[in-house]
Amino acid sequence: MGMRSHTVYRTFTTQQRRQFVRITDDVAAAVHESGVQEGLVLVSAQHITAGVWVNDDEPGILEDTLEWLDKLAPPSWRPPANDVAAQLSPDPGDFRHHRGGEDNGDAHWKNLLVHHQVILPITGGELDLGPWQAVFYCEFDGGRPKRMVIKVLGD
Amino acid sequence: MGMRSHTVYRTFTTQQRRQFVRITDDVAAAVHESGVQEGLVLVSAQHITAGVWVNDDEPGILEDTLEWLDKLAPPSWRPPANDVAAQLSPDPGDFRHHRGGEDNGDAHWKNLLVHHQVILPITGGELDLGPWQAVFYCEFDGGRPKRMVIKVLGD
Amino acid sequence: MGMRSHTVYRTFTTQQRRQFVRITDDVAAAVHESGVQEGLVLVSAQHITAGVWVNDDEPGILEDTLEWLDKLAPPSWRPPANDVAAQLSPDPGDFRHHRGGEDNGDAHWKNLLVHHQVILPITGGELDLGPWQAVFYCEFDGGRPKRMVIKVLGD
Repeated sequence: MGMRSHTVYRTFTTQQRRQFVRITDDVAAAVHESGVQEGLVLVSAQHITAGVWVNDDEPGILEDTLEWLDKLAPPSWRPPANDVAAQLSPDPGDFRHHRGGEDNGDAHWKNLLVHHQVILPITGGELDLGPWQAVFYCEFDGGRPKRMVIKVLGD
Repeated sequence: MGMRSHTVYRTFTTQQRRQFVRITDDVAAAVHESGVQEGLVLVSAQHITAGVWVNDDEPGILEDTLEWLDKLAPPSWRPPANDVAAQLSPDPGDFRHHRGGEDNGDAHWKNLLVHHQVILPITGGELDLGPWQAVFYCEFDGGRPKRMVIKVLGD
Repeated sequence: MGMRSHTVYRTFTTQQRRQFVRITDDVAAAVHESGVQEGLVLVSAQHITAGVWVNDDEPGILEDTLEWLDKLAPPSWRPPANDVAAQLSPDPGDFRHHRGGEDNGDAHWKNLLVHHQVILPITGGELDLGPWQAVFYCEFDGGRPKRMVIKVLGD
């Protein structure tokens, strides 16, 4: 068997600062274009304030999750959601990272929690996902162009 | 060199709602069956309420970790463990996700924290793990059949 | 096309107990040595108390992140940072894991949060990273030799 690879870049400029963008079909299209029958596909944010999550395409859980991430990794551009969020905020009062003029420290932390990438299996020429697995690009500092790569490898 | 791939599905129906299942030997068996000498193996839950973790096969740390995950990602089907768990629970009192009749919102969050997959290296025909690295399927909403995929790629 | 693979091990003995070590150049060197033009490279800790993170090489965010991880995954070898850290500590007062004489339970939890590995794309013979993506080996229980593997696969 011979190895094939295929690379697709996607750029997202979300309207909202934080947004979950369903990209299952984009990944499936890249797999079909590649002609790979058996292999792996990497889906990876190329910025450090975004993530990729495989979960349920159900609005309730997405809303629950953003609310929760804002407690675990609290933005400093608005008041903390509650006392736990206040205590999980940086001890100097604001992120040390913001000394350079940034305001997106919380998005770096959300990148850590969500993880910036997934690898999906390709079987019989198709993306091999479970019944409720949808792929989301998770923007935590949007409103500007952010790049993501889809890389297919297999035969 | 020629590329090889090999795919194995495993279905778990755990007795407990939450359970860590050691699967190192299953992954090693899939690697041996594949005949791959140099490559990568993806181990990935195909459900959105489970994870895969590489850590220590030591009962204490597994018990510590489940207790901790229940604080960070609190179940709504029992009282929160403490005040932090209460504040990290969804603000509407229950998960928005549960409006459809579900009760497993916390398992979606644990899936996010643990991550649903790992990639392990294969070197010289063997799973290339460190001395204390064991592979666990982490069930957070069990008692029903849940599928996992092992996909080997290499030569 | 023919498949190639290349494996490099790195051992870190950090001076500090916890330390972020930038390894982008090590990964790029392994890619160049492999001769792979299109493929994937796995960068994975082989210990269970370390992680690998792709983020910003900016001292402020690294300091913010370690402070924050010490609240979410509190060490038991020093007093908790605040009340949230105290409540996220194990309920028995110390980690069950420490009954065997260890004191690094918090490092296992940080391994879970950060994740122990990343997969990076290789395109046109180069590591295909975004403009601010740097690769860090994240040591959470250092001062002794800890191994990491870099595994390149592609053609």
